[in-house]
Amino acid sequence: MNEKEKVLFINFFENKKAIMRRVAIIGVGFSKFGERWDKGLRELALEAGIAALEDAGLKGEQIDAGYVGTMASGSFSGQEHIGSLLADYLGINPIPITRVEAACASGGVALRQGYLAVASGLHDIVIVGGVEKMTDLSTEQVTEILGAAGDQEWELFMGATFPALYAMMARAYMHKFNAKEEHLAAVAVKNHKHAKNVPYAQFRNEITIEDVLNSKVVSSPLKVLDCSPITDGAAAVVLCPLDMAYSYTKKPVEIIASAHATDKIALHSRESLYEIKATKIAAEKAYKMANVSPKDIDVAEVHDCFTIAEILAIEDLGFFKKGEGYKAAYEGLTTLDGEMPINTSGGLKAAGHPVGATGIKQAGEITLQLQNRAENRQVKNAEIGLCHNVGGSGGTAVVHILKIV
Amino acid sequence: MNEKEKVLFINFFENKKAIMRRVAIIGVGFSKFGERWDKGLRELALEAGIAALEDAGLKGEQIDAGYVGTMASGSFSGQEHIGSLLADYLGINPIPITRVEAACASGGVALRQGYLAVASGLHDIVIVGGVEKMTDLSTEQVTEILGAAGDQEWELFMGATFPALYAMMARAYMHKFNAKEEHLAAVAVKNHKHAKNVPYAQFRNEITIEDVLNSKVVSSPLKVLDCSPITDGAAAVVLCPLDMAYSYTKKPVEIIASAHATDKIALHSRESLYEIKATKIAAEKAYKMANVSPKDIDVAEVHDCFTIAEILAIEDLGFFKKGEGYKAAYEGLTTLDGEMPINTSGGLKAAGHPVGATGIKQAGEITLQLQNRAENRQVKNAEIGLCHNVGGSGGTAVVHILKIV
Repeated sequence: MNEKEKVLFINFFENKKAIMRRVAIIGVGFSKFGERWDKGLRELALEAGIAALEDAGLKGEQIDAGYVGTMASGSFSGQEHIGSLLADYLGINPIPITRVEAACASGGVALRQGYLAVASGLHDIVIVGGVEKMTDLSTEQVTEILGAAGDQEWELFMGATFPALYAMMARAYMHKFNAKEEHLAAVAVKNHKHAKNVPYAQFRNEITIEDVLNSKVVSSPLKVLDCSPITDGAAAVVLCPLDMAYSYTKKPVEIIASAHATDKIALHSRESLYEIKATKIAAEKAYKMANVSPKDIDVAEVHDCFTIAEILAIEDLGFFKKGEGYKAAYEGLTTLDGEMPINTSGGLKAAGHPVGATGIKQAGEITLQLQNRAENRQVKNAEIGLCHNVGGSGGTAVVHILKIV
Repeated sequence: MNEKEKVLFINFFENKKAIMRRVAIIGVGFSKFGERWDKGLRELALEAGIAALEDAGLKGEQIDAGYVGTMASGSFSGQEHIGSLLADYLGINPIPITRVEAACASGGVALRQGYLAVASGLHDIVIVGGVEKMTDLSTEQVTEILGAAGDQEWELFMGATFPALYAMMARAYMHKFNAKEEHLAAVAVKNHKHAKNVPYAQFRNEITIEDVLNSKVVSSPLKVLDCSPITDGAAAVVLCPLDMAYSYTKKPVEIIASAHATDKIALHSRESLYEIKATKIAAEKAYKMANVSPKDIDVAEVHDCFTIAEILAIEDLGFFKKGEGYKAAYEGLTTLDGEMPINTSGGLKAAGHPVGATGIKQAGEITLQLQNRAENRQVKNAEIGLCHNVGGSGGTAVVHILKIV
């Protein structure tokens, strides 16, 4: 028994602690994101799920369990009971698939549950997916359905949509730190530039700061090009215990931290409008669990549902000081070749934001980066990456840290 | 190191198996079930959650995590992001609460995730709840929303509601085994009789076989009194590692098995119409995990969304032979003082069926029975109990086995 084993032994037999396994990502898959009028909810999930299984070199019958994140399939498509639906369509009955929901953080929370299922020893091969089919309804209907991520009785019912909630955060931030609309716009410009090289992205066109500033106001100061789009799409990753991972891939990526925090669901109950406290708490837990600091992160996917959200995220995650994040995108520090590359996928803004899929897409993108498979959007020598997924206006935050083994 | 510890030791260090902890239920709470026009979704969840915490003698700040099952809060109440909402209203931010959904088995699946969170060692004190607020809409709207538990594209869209799907199963069963409408009716009569003694139940009135036979046809052969009602309600249980349980209760109830299986979501794709295969598979797994047989079960809560569903359940769970379950209720074998007491809570039929809450209510009821706290509905000497929760027309089944320690 070596020293590490001795500690585990004492922990279990004397302190009655359980012992968890190390967990790796061994396959990733994406559907094309966009207005996917050719496919429904189940077909999109299958497109990503099958791609992830093929990437891991696995067959359906080798899966032990699944998790899927989707926010509002009941409202978007009249379909709940997604676990049964997808086990059926993937052809893997009677394997259990569990659907989880945490608004726009549904994917991140699903990944955390999948991680737990493997780490605990309950299951070996677990597929985790996220999916949302959003474009079958009008923009007004979609906006109302997304409002269900906030406090229905005290926000949505009173007329506060999500662009309005984030606009209030943007105004508070701009006022406090003297940021301008062009600083926000720089986030969108950078993310569109990144998405040019992303095969699955919804928007692969470059835009300029002027384009953003001149685009139609949605909720001042946020304009259309400050907002992530309405997107159909799905993403999936396959997990297994690290010990088994080399049977499936030469480059397993380990999940070295998984953290989930909540905050007041309504914006008006928060302590501050210019930070997302749940992000700070989840990040702190994750850094501690992984025994790393923000400086150790080589690449990150963060939740930029609106441009202001990316600025808050890169501050709350500790990459930049509070009140200085807005300069980072503007000065090019967060581009692919900058000192802290953020959202090489194009983020929610340009890759698209199929709500339940976003948290899984982030993990997929970071996995590709750490495996040196990100082609012409590759961050050099990326060894540790972070995924940051937010639900609502900050009622939920999930942070995962991944590392190439 | 004793023999059992040696096996664990070898498993972990040589076979790289994780080690899970034993998990106990230490508190239960119910909201009153019924047409609760006095309370919304969040208040119902709180009513049950606070009752469960008080039952365990715990304060909110002692909770490490939560899980909540709800099927369709988005469609019923315009509210998703239930984890954040309830962490907020329970006053326990930043603790993570995770919402899971599996149609009418949402509660059972939530319990399984909560069990896993404790067993794995990730969390110690975990609250698991279920809630549904259904009576704010018309019966037609509710019927359509519940249809989302089936295959939206191939069943609901074509006009097949849930009463229609179960009516087809009832017809197939009656034809195959020569059962009559009065045999089905006997299930409802028995469950109403049980609910008379259940404080939280929606319907505490006795009914007769004639009442059922003369009630309005919903989808022949199912009549109104063959169907579970539309109900507002919530239930909660508190879990912790068995080692810690005696700090909170003199009578911890251990979860000795937790199993979840899926099947084709659409009825027309199933192998048989007179059995629910997912129930059989989940039960088989659960009996194996707990190392017990159906004969060892002293009391069970089964998923009687329609009278025919209870008959299928008691057969598929192995309490009665296939084709003979219909005689059991008719002959009184499944009453409180019968040889196999089923649904002492009154079941979904008479206690009510707030969809997401049902699986948790079942665990709460069985816990009370095993702790000898079920008052005038107490099953004598009950030591081992079973909970059986179904999603849709059988696309999901979850089975838990509980035992007094």
